[in-house]
Amino acid sequence: MSEKPVTIGVAGGTGSGKTTISNHLLERVGSKHIAYLPHDAYYKDLSDMPEDSRGSRNFDHPDSLDTALLIENIKQLQQWQHTLIPVYDFTRHVRKPERADVGPQPIILVEGILIFSEPELRELFDIKIFVDTDADIRFIRRLKRDIAERERTADSVIEQYLETVRPMHLKFVEPSKRYADVIIPEGGFNFVAIDMIADRIRSMLHAQAE
Amino acid sequence: MSEKPVTIGVAGGTGSGKTTISNHLLERVGSKHIAYLPHDAYYKDLSDMPEDSRGSRNFDHPDSLDTALLIENIKQLQQWQHTLIPVYDFTRHVRKPERADVGPQPIILVEGILIFSEPELRELFDIKIFVDTDADIRFIRRLKRDIAERERTADSVIEQYLETVRPMHLKFVEPSKRYADVIIPEGGFNFVAIDMIADRIRSMLHAQAE
Repeated sequence: MSEKPVTIGVAGGTGSGKTTISNHLLERVGSKHIAYLPHDAYYKDLSDMPEDSRGSRNFDHPDSLDTALLIENIKQLQQWQHTLIPVYDFTRHVRKPERADVGPQPIILVEGILIFSEPELRELFDIKIFVDTDADIRFIRRLKRDIAERERTADSVIEQYLETVRPMHLKFVEPSKRYADVIIPEGGFNFVAIDMIADRIRSMLHAQAE
Repeated sequence: MSEKPVTIGVAGGTGSGKTTISNHLLERVGSKHIAYLPHDAYYKDLSDMPEDSRGSRNFDHPDSLDTALLIENIKQLQQWQHTLIPVYDFTRHVRKPERADVGPQPIILVEGILIFSEPELRELFDIKIFVDTDADIRFIRRLKRDIAERERTADSVIEQYLETVRPMHLKFVEPSKRYADVIIPEGGFNFVAIDMIADRIRSMLHAQAE
């Protein structure tokens, strides 16, 4: 197996269904063939900020993420090397002391809202997939998720959405759609599109194995 | 081979690159496996109109096409039957007396700007692909094509574009994008997307042959 691994990026706004798509791909192609890197794991450590003000940071701006480290990790995997990826504590907004070991695989799957907005990162992808779901549906999904899983109030979700999530989406996420090779409407439940991507991955795996 | 053939629709505005995509698919998958039906062949016969006024008809409105016949032809192919499709004379805007015999194939590929705008036709597709290219690029391609291949003047291309092509695109073509399973940006030269669709078709052919 001398060829480079195939690097696939799955981007899309909050609530677009990109994690569901990534999970379906991991399941169908077999997670043992895929090195999975969520950009979310690369949030910068906020331990030098007072703990009660960390939650109000703008988590949707590219500067909140350690993209240089993600690029380094992808490049290692592309050379068939093991890499250590960060583990993030989302409740305290700090990077945990441990790191996760990710072994080289024929497929590298990277997921995140902002992965197509940085040119240096964008160039690493062989296939760029953008999950495109209407903004109202994305907001409703985020609202339900944040209330159910993160014990947030509707008011605080709305406030964060209007103050940072939405403006950052329009400024960074939406324009990055232009770099996509394929746009998947209506995220997680679009099985026609999921089948298509899964078949492409399988055929690439098959070509590598020959 | 008892399963139904797989029916794929490729839509997109004028100049989007959908014909180029269809041609690449025919080439990669092998045209002998594909029954190809261009919606263009189904323009209605204008022989009862004076010949010099036919060119000014609105060719971008759904009513200018005999979609009922396309639906009938697809349904026959879906039952593994031969079908006779119309042959259109684009210079005289009439249907030629002969019809083309299209044999049943495991893949039925239908192409046209309006194929996702009619519910009854839309329901026949297993995979709906929309080729999405910026409007200025689409206009430039159409302008070049109509001048080079159809001996039109720039003025007449612009006039037709503003009077019928563009309003019909906004009214019928653009809204039909919402029904697509996959959106392919920048048409004919997006080989990442073409590879993905071709692999999906090959894998479906393989599954049918088993």
